[in-house]
Amino acid sequence: MDKIKRNERLAAMTQILTASPNHIFTLSYFCELFSTAKSTVSEDVAILQDTMQHFGLGKLETVTGAAGGVRYRPMDLKSNGREFIQGICEKLMEKERVLPGGYLYFSDILATPELVQGMGNLIAGQYYDANVDFVLTMETKGIPVALMTAQALRVPLVIARRATKVYEGSAVNISYVSGSGNIESMALSRRAVKEGQKALIVDDFMRGGGTARGMIELMKEFNVTVAGICFVLALENPKHRAIEGEKALMLLSDMRDGSPLTIRPADWIK
Amino acid sequence: MDKIKRNERLAAMTQILTASPNHIFTLSYFCELFSTAKSTVSEDVAILQDTMQHFGLGKLETVTGAAGGVRYRPMDLKSNGREFIQGICEKLMEKERVLPGGYLYFSDILATPELVQGMGNLIAGQYYDANVDFVLTMETKGIPVALMTAQALRVPLVIARRATKVYEGSAVNISYVSGSGNIESMALSRRAVKEGQKALIVDDFMRGGGTARGMIELMKEFNVTVAGICFVLALENPKHRAIEGEKALMLLSDMRDGSPLTIRPADWIK
Repeated sequence: MDKIKRNERLAAMTQILTASPNHIFTLSYFCELFSTAKSTVSEDVAILQDTMQHFGLGKLETVTGAAGGVRYRPMDLKSNGREFIQGICEKLMEKERVLPGGYLYFSDILATPELVQGMGNLIAGQYYDANVDFVLTMETKGIPVALMTAQALRVPLVIARRATKVYEGSAVNISYVSGSGNIESMALSRRAVKEGQKALIVDDFMRGGGTARGMIELMKEFNVTVAGICFVLALENPKHRAIEGEKALMLLSDMRDGSPLTIRPADWIK
Repeated sequence: MDKIKRNERLAAMTQILTASPNHIFTLSYFCELFSTAKSTVSEDVAILQDTMQHFGLGKLETVTGAAGGVRYRPMDLKSNGREFIQGICEKLMEKERVLPGGYLYFSDILATPELVQGMGNLIAGQYYDANVDFVLTMETKGIPVALMTAQALRVPLVIARRATKVYEGSAVNISYVSGSGNIESMALSRRAVKEGQKALIVDDFMRGGGTARGMIELMKEFNVTVAGICFVLALENPKHRAIEGEKALMLLSDMRDGSPLTIRPADWIK
């Protein structure tokens, strides 16, 4: 492979851009990599933009200014977002998922890479302009979706623990009332975040928002602003709600009154 | 965009293939997507193979037979694997990471998407031929790397818990002796895995392999074979070892004897 052809440049650029979502690559980076002129790279970028849009494979954005360049944002899914979430809703409504006590088994869905990546991309798409510094989740089940959200936003993931661990160093501990009414505790290493940062909270399930309220309180201890809260699944009309303004990918009708289980995509998902 | 040009096909194919690592796409899939002939798609694949190899962006493999087609395996990293892991080793050796009791703070590294993706790709690269059915990890810190390994292998992640949870349904519980000598417990939902499957165990840290031993025992309860065990970081010469044949990305010299902390990439990483 002597001189690098447009074909090859486009394939390589696509891999490089999509492997590092939301990271701004300068045009000079590609000029050097391909030993080619800026005008050529600009043409390549224009072709890629059209192609991605045509096939619904995400969005390539050019960013102007001193820190300018080009970045990939995986906002669109191969099939559209609503169809994708509708598919997950149908899986979740399978009868055998209802456990004693009216709990719903969905640990498998929360740990299937293709599904959590799609969900993470959808969540991230809502917060690109919020300029968050990290994604916060509470262990355990929300970690995969939160990680994929963080990857799409290109920020770190921060995991709050149920208790302080020796290998986390000094930590801030708080108590909170969980959705099921119990007093629980939550801990986060002092090293994990910095004062003045902005957090996006991502978690698997909201019953009344108690755990999310705990995470908001925890962030206050660190002087961190919460820019948004998004759940994979949220109870549609909780009797008591501890938070406001949250988003969810899917909404669950209350099962306690004996009505059949229904789960539907949230209205904001197009 | 009327007729789809080679340029555009190559860019779209790259995105589609790399977004679903290890998934076999039939050539017919691309023929339909691009309304083009099989011979043309074959040529496209050949160009992509050369390009990925040239730029070290992973491996595109053609699979023959009835279930044949083409699949992407992100084995190579942009920089080579050893350099990437060496960079993480150097970060881990920063003095301020050593905590009271000789513990090492590395939760941040284990939750940074770019880093866990690179580590997951490297681990997956060792097990493509093992045909595992799922990746198993024990909550909490190993989840991100295990998820990225599962994504590269295109298999689900299964997370063992410290205790049974009501929302996991009936579970198998076992007790085990942890690396620090305590008796701990581990639980896994009966629904999580199926008899006769093959597991790859991925976890963050091995002191003596106690937790991994526990995971092996847990898999026996489910009649699941363990095809491999890989850690992010392992103690190089543990005094007692509960397992054998494990791999690790990085090896840690024993800090208890007062010698300086050294962490190095494992020899298998090229």
